[in-house]
Amino acid sequence: MTTHTDYLWFNTRQRREMVRITDQVAEIVAKSGVTDGLVLVSAMHITAGVYVNDWEDGLIADFGEWLEKLAPSGLDYHHHRTGEDNGDAHLKRTLIGHQVILPITNGRLDLGPWEQVFYAEFDGRRKKRVVVKVMGQ
Amino acid sequence: MTTHTDYLWFNTRQRREMVRITDQVAEIVAKSGVTDGLVLVSAMHITAGVYVNDWEDGLIADFGEWLEKLAPSGLDYHHHRTGEDNGDAHLKRTLIGHQVILPITNGRLDLGPWEQVFYAEFDGRRKKRVVVKVMGQ
Amino acid sequence: MTTHTDYLWFNTRQRREMVRITDQVAEIVAKSGVTDGLVLVSAMHITAGVYVNDWEDGLIADFGEWLEKLAPSGLDYHHHRTGEDNGDAHLKRTLIGHQVILPITNGRLDLGPWEQVFYAEFDGRRKKRVVVKVMGQ
Repeated sequence: MTTHTDYLWFNTRQRREMVRITDQVAEIVAKSGVTDGLVLVSAMHITAGVYVNDWEDGLIADFGEWLEKLAPSGLDYHHHRTGEDNGDAHLKRTLIGHQVILPITNGRLDLGPWEQVFYAEFDGRRKKRVVVKVMGQ
Repeated sequence: MTTHTDYLWFNTRQRREMVRITDQVAEIVAKSGVTDGLVLVSAMHITAGVYVNDWEDGLIADFGEWLEKLAPSGLDYHHHRTGEDNGDAHLKRTLIGHQVILPITNGRLDLGPWEQVFYAEFDGRRKKRVVVKVMGQ
Repeated sequence: MTTHTDYLWFNTRQRREMVRITDQVAEIVAKSGVTDGLVLVSAMHITAGVYVNDWEDGLIADFGEWLEKLAPSGLDYHHHRTGEDNGDAHLKRTLIGHQVILPITNGRLDLGPWEQVFYAEFDGRRKKRVVVKVMGQ
């Protein structure tokens, strides 16, 4: 069994941003030498997430508006009594999901035709990390 | 370490349908020979999901109505400018979850008494796939 | 490859309660002897979840209010025709997530500075279980 651990760093220009990371994850898998197994891709900060969906700008805009509707910014969250103003970011990341596990088969990410991996930032403009852990043979 | 990969195909009659797949996943685990480990069950299409919950028709109806309330169909999603009409399906699958990992212990799926695995289709009536990847010993 | 399986039991005083379990999961990982790999932490009951977020009482209160807003109790759910009254608990656990996978690196849970693991109970006051499955080397 082989394991391989790597980290992706982000420092987005916008407070909220969806960043496609399929290629970076595939590179880490290639570097690991694992040809059959699993790879975990998980946000290490609790106001960011990782999800799999379509690489289509309209849909990405829909996600942004929908997350804002279900987990609005600007509300008087209890969390803000700590001095934070990112209560909505914790909720948005919960909706989008904080991690994915991708299968590796025949030396490649075993994804469907439209599956793309995204880093979802909801409180950016500072350095944040994603852990990528490969495990298999 | 052993890995085993299989795929489940679906072509639902209804556009939206919840299909119980616990038995199919258990069969793949048995075929793999893995008696201790993990199995990933993950939708390969981005308008479908996989989730664990109760096998009870009333609750399944509740899920359908609730998902429609939080991620309504018939809205003018940006995604529809591409010619698609399934923006809501992308959102619904995000709410229900796109994958699960199940533990395998003593040669069996290590599930609680009411845990059942479901394929959640939100844009069906065509062939779609779920990947099942077993890993363990 | 090593696997190690353990279970955490809960019997919360309140019907809804968020219980921090990071330390218990870390203890199980230490006991397993696995220094590099993955650990699955998954609710075995379908009205409870497991999630990673901030250990801050204000935010935990925000989660409670937000889940009640998006998945209200007291509605006439179809599921209640079975005699149950916990339809909302099934939906709330779907929003918060039913499981997480945590990476293990250099013998420790490989978590970001604010990542804490929580058991999310939505229909408590009775014995319920979480499975913790460690896999690695």
